[in-house]
Amino acid sequence: MLHVKWDAVTAEKGGYEHFMLKEIHEQPKAIRDTLAGRIKEGIVDLSQEISLTAEELNGIDRIHFVACGTAYHAGLIGKAVVERLARIPVEVDVASEYRYRNPIITPSTLVVVVSQSGETADTLAALREAQKAGAKVLGITNVVGSSVAREADEVLMTWAGPEIAVASTKAYTSQLIAIYLFGLYLARIRGTRSEAQLKEATEELLRLPEKVDNALSDADTIKQFAEQIKNHDNLFFIGRGLDHAVVMEGSLKLKEISYIHSEAYAAGELKHGTLALIEEGIPVIALATQQDIFDKMVSNIIEVKARGAHVLGLAQDGDTELTKSVDEVFTIPQTLPLFTPVVAVIPLQLLAYYTSVARGLNVDKPRNLAKSVTVE
Amino acid sequence: MLHVKWDAVTAEKGGYEHFMLKEIHEQPKAIRDTLAGRIKEGIVDLSQEISLTAEELNGIDRIHFVACGTAYHAGLIGKAVVERLARIPVEVDVASEYRYRNPIITPSTLVVVVSQSGETADTLAALREAQKAGAKVLGITNVVGSSVAREADEVLMTWAGPEIAVASTKAYTSQLIAIYLFGLYLARIRGTRSEAQLKEATEELLRLPEKVDNALSDADTIKQFAEQIKNHDNLFFIGRGLDHAVVMEGSLKLKEISYIHSEAYAAGELKHGTLALIEEGIPVIALATQQDIFDKMVSNIIEVKARGAHVLGLAQDGDTELTKSVDEVFTIPQTLPLFTPVVAVIPLQLLAYYTSVARGLNVDKPRNLAKSVTVE
Repeated sequence: MLHVKWDAVTAEKGGYEHFMLKEIHEQPKAIRDTLAGRIKEGIVDLSQEISLTAEELNGIDRIHFVACGTAYHAGLIGKAVVERLARIPVEVDVASEYRYRNPIITPSTLVVVVSQSGETADTLAALREAQKAGAKVLGITNVVGSSVAREADEVLMTWAGPEIAVASTKAYTSQLIAIYLFGLYLARIRGTRSEAQLKEATEELLRLPEKVDNALSDADTIKQFAEQIKNHDNLFFIGRGLDHAVVMEGSLKLKEISYIHSEAYAAGELKHGTLALIEEGIPVIALATQQDIFDKMVSNIIEVKARGAHVLGLAQDGDTELTKSVDEVFTIPQTLPLFTPVVAVIPLQLLAYYTSVARGLNVDKPRNLAKSVTVE
Repeated sequence: MLHVKWDAVTAEKGGYEHFMLKEIHEQPKAIRDTLAGRIKEGIVDLSQEISLTAEELNGIDRIHFVACGTAYHAGLIGKAVVERLARIPVEVDVASEYRYRNPIITPSTLVVVVSQSGETADTLAALREAQKAGAKVLGITNVVGSSVAREADEVLMTWAGPEIAVASTKAYTSQLIAIYLFGLYLARIRGTRSEAQLKEATEELLRLPEKVDNALSDADTIKQFAEQIKNHDNLFFIGRGLDHAVVMEGSLKLKEISYIHSEAYAAGELKHGTLALIEEGIPVIALATQQDIFDKMVSNIIEVKARGAHVLGLAQDGDTELTKSVDEVFTIPQTLPLFTPVVAVIPLQLLAYYTSVARGLNVDKPRNLAKSVTVE
């Protein structure tokens, strides 16, 4: 196992105006460190860290992701990753709900808890409930020696380094990487993906740091977006499929540090009520990275445009279609559909950051919030 | 099977100012009609309507509820009902997501689609996808002869009568009743509840029309609440467990016809970000009907109160605790925990209605929305 060391000095702002901006820019390194030592001969191999045998991994018939806040949003991606790669049914719960709802847990249920600090009170309580009910628990955490790291049956560390800003950024992308590694490992053990497919995916994982770096390079466009939304009190994010999970995270980021009431919606669900709130000039941030549902997404964008929304679109490099339907567009490097969240969240993190700055707020320590929620 | 007849005349407003208010008040009757003929010797019996054999019902190992908008919120209650009563794992999806996410469906998966009109385009597409993947589909719909009624393998009608207002009310509570009936029937066939428990629950189901009637009787308090929120552009609903699903519906109702940006949150999840939006004077509508998590809910209310929120609380009759922690309180008749959504949604429907009226809006035909969404 690779241990990445850090100390108080590396936690300084190092030239950035805020910890959050520094941490946003540390993501290529956090991803690299989280991948390091876990790929052997071009294929993901977690056998040094996860002690579950092939038989035990084959015996899992249900997975529950349980987490809070940003880590919960990583869990939503986890559902798509595990279901698509390994065809195991997955449920995702916020920990404060899970622990009180008497979930159906059997010895063949694997519960995956995700917590940057490893001390989130509700997540820790869920971990204990799950173990009591007979499930094995896999903990994904960023802090060696934390309660989650100590108490979970299996641990997959993220190596994001210390995260100081209350609004989580590099911890989230590192959690996604840990989830991809776990999904690919499961797919390998369970034989649900061919070796060629696993190699292709693994190669692409290794390209993500560079793609994230690339997505970080055009801050100016995002600053312009921030100027356009900074005086609004309400706005919406929309997306479909994986993009929906990503906009939930983007919306939470914006809420946390800009205090704008933003809300993320599955784009196809808008017309079942929330479309009533779309009026002249309201900003809508639309993410359209998933090619198989791209046309459906464009239809949803046209619906909000028709009601006067000002649409900021995020598409993949090379897009020529979305550009026609939105007011502004920002593009991100192409990657495999399953991996787009890692790249797509970058402009959303930057948007939250620059909007908070433009509104003159305390970026790193927003009102009412604690970094690690160690009370219920 | 009992057929409830209706015609153009019964669809008139009949003395009410709006169809929505009329339909809200028709709920006791809609519930009675949906229960009629489905209880034999004090126990739910759907064998005349559902042709699945006991062996087939016992063989179901996963259930997916798939729906849009308000019917999706009924599905969220469906998850709790089926998991608690029959211990079958349930997933709930919005139809526009489900149909494109390649869900894991096996021949032992039952897919339950819920649609008032039976013509909701995304729901209908999901029904067809599920059948193609080999699942049996149970349709819950309010319209005899609708596409869902014709195409689903099994049908459980709701007998709410024609619903004219765009914002659904009596269709939702009737969907809940159909779901309770189905859950209790499953529990009976699968032996997960004793006959005594089934009889107790069934007796209580039969009392719901009267309890809903009772909840409808104090419109004045709700009108006062509406006066307090009518000039706000943003507010939050919070709840835990089943109350969370109910406030999601209450929030959607308010959005649809008042255009206030309201958002429903799992109360324990607020502190993971959205608490940053709670500032002096912002209205928070807090539902606290679930006794097993009542203390946790009160803690969450105290958190938002401490940030200056103006809290409108909804509790059960006889409450002495919530009253101490909130600014205003409205109480509803007590019932079994699983059935509280039927009663608790009533004041939320009325709140949406009176707020829309107070803001001078078109209650029955809100902007941008159609009654039945027959396009994608």
